[in-house]
Amino acid sequence: MNKVIEQIHAHRSIRKFQKKDIENSVLSEILEAATMASSSGNMQSYSIIVTKDQGMKSQMFESHFKQSMLMDAPIFLTFCADFNRMRRWLQISNAANNFDNYMSFMISSIDAILASQNAALAAESLGLGLCYMGTTLASAKDIGEVLELPQNVVPIVGFALGYPDEAPELRKRLPLKGIIHHEKYQRYCDDDIREIYREKEEQGLDRYKSLNLNEIHNLAQIYTQVKYTEESHIMYSESLLQYLKDQNFLTGNSLV
Amino acid sequence: MNKVIEQIHAHRSIRKFQKKDIENSVLSEILEAATMASSSGNMQSYSIIVTKDQGMKSQMFESHFKQSMLMDAPIFLTFCADFNRMRRWLQISNAANNFDNYMSFMISSIDAILASQNAALAAESLGLGLCYMGTTLASAKDIGEVLELPQNVVPIVGFALGYPDEAPELRKRLPLKGIIHHEKYQRYCDDDIREIYREKEEQGLDRYKSLNLNEIHNLAQIYTQVKYTEESHIMYSESLLQYLKDQNFLTGNSLV
Repeated sequence: MNKVIEQIHAHRSIRKFQKKDIENSVLSEILEAATMASSSGNMQSYSIIVTKDQGMKSQMFESHFKQSMLMDAPIFLTFCADFNRMRRWLQISNAANNFDNYMSFMISSIDAILASQNAALAAESLGLGLCYMGTTLASAKDIGEVLELPQNVVPIVGFALGYPDEAPELRKRLPLKGIIHHEKYQRYCDDDIREIYREKEEQGLDRYKSLNLNEIHNLAQIYTQVKYTEESHIMYSESLLQYLKDQNFLTGNSLV
Repeated sequence: MNKVIEQIHAHRSIRKFQKKDIENSVLSEILEAATMASSSGNMQSYSIIVTKDQGMKSQMFESHFKQSMLMDAPIFLTFCADFNRMRRWLQISNAANNFDNYMSFMISSIDAILASQNAALAAESLGLGLCYMGTTLASAKDIGEVLELPQNVVPIVGFALGYPDEAPELRKRLPLKGIIHHEKYQRYCDDDIREIYREKEEQGLDRYKSLNLNEIHNLAQIYTQVKYTEESHIMYSESLLQYLKDQNFLTGNSLV
């Protein structure tokens, strides 16, 4: 393995951080690396919000489901889909309108996510650790209000960033045969599915054993009866689509 | 700069490829690296389709807007949001239903995109080059049909992959001050916007000079009058949202 692939394999989500600030030069190197990612038409339709202030973090604490890593890490980075800046440039350049529709939202989300993964790997290569927090999207509206995001800007992914104070084991990944398809999507039989999830199930049950859950007999049930209920996901879906509409990302759609 | 950050800075989109196959061991190393990325709840709700067959590529040629790199690169990788596999596992495990809604679609899209960027950097570190093709999402439905994607699977990003036969210059990025916001979203004035886009404009006009476009006076106009028209984006938006519905990713939403 070369250094880059070694670094990729060294990834662990870090939830405990040292009380140690991140030097400005280190932060700049991480942010610069983010901007080197591919983006649609090289438009870089994203923005990155740097949160250091504990007061600002407090305002987002509930939105991030009171996860302690938000407060404990010296920095939180929020990667936003952003066509506001580009649309301002179009306007002052007498260019035709665009980028206030759903396709544009997805393009700018992809740009933001690719940039975030570059930032994550750059940070890890500099000895930092991080944990992506899915609450960034689940609470997009509330977080957007705290960050004072204008029209056509939506938080997509974010992570707590700092020097690690733990060294967790690798969480099992699905075997390649469960992820990769050759030429066409493979059809799995039930036994394939059991085999694909077997190692994850073994490790996962250990992880959640401490919860002492009644009426939960396997890892799959933990996922949708404890962690991610359909009810909560339907609620997030509604509020996210409504927020996309409010943020001017659903113009011209007859479906929404 | 360390090796990882050097590699990140070395990224260029590659559109011309040598006629040279990619060894299976190299491909496996790239795909393995993809699976090391963070994913929501470690669910890895994505699939990667490997296309090598020229017949399969021909079937996607129009969907990818007849871009020659699809045919010229030895491999095309399509990264799909995929909750089909996970939902099968839920079903055979007597777990509660979920992941057939819009929030789940976004979660699995994020998983797929993070994995793709790991794959991209791993590939580049092994001497390969690639070009992300936004047509993967714009033509999601047609590509999904060729790849025989089942319910709850949608193509999100993809790239042509091979040994580079060109060494293009870096395309200018926006300066950090145009991307980064401290604590709250900064408000730009018109002069800020002009300054942020200045270098990109200078390079971009050179790039498109050969097009000899009448009535186009600046780069912003090229973006929305030539490359990305509002009309086309509204069409893609409609068909993408309709496809999400068809692929069972919009259950329970009153908005759609």
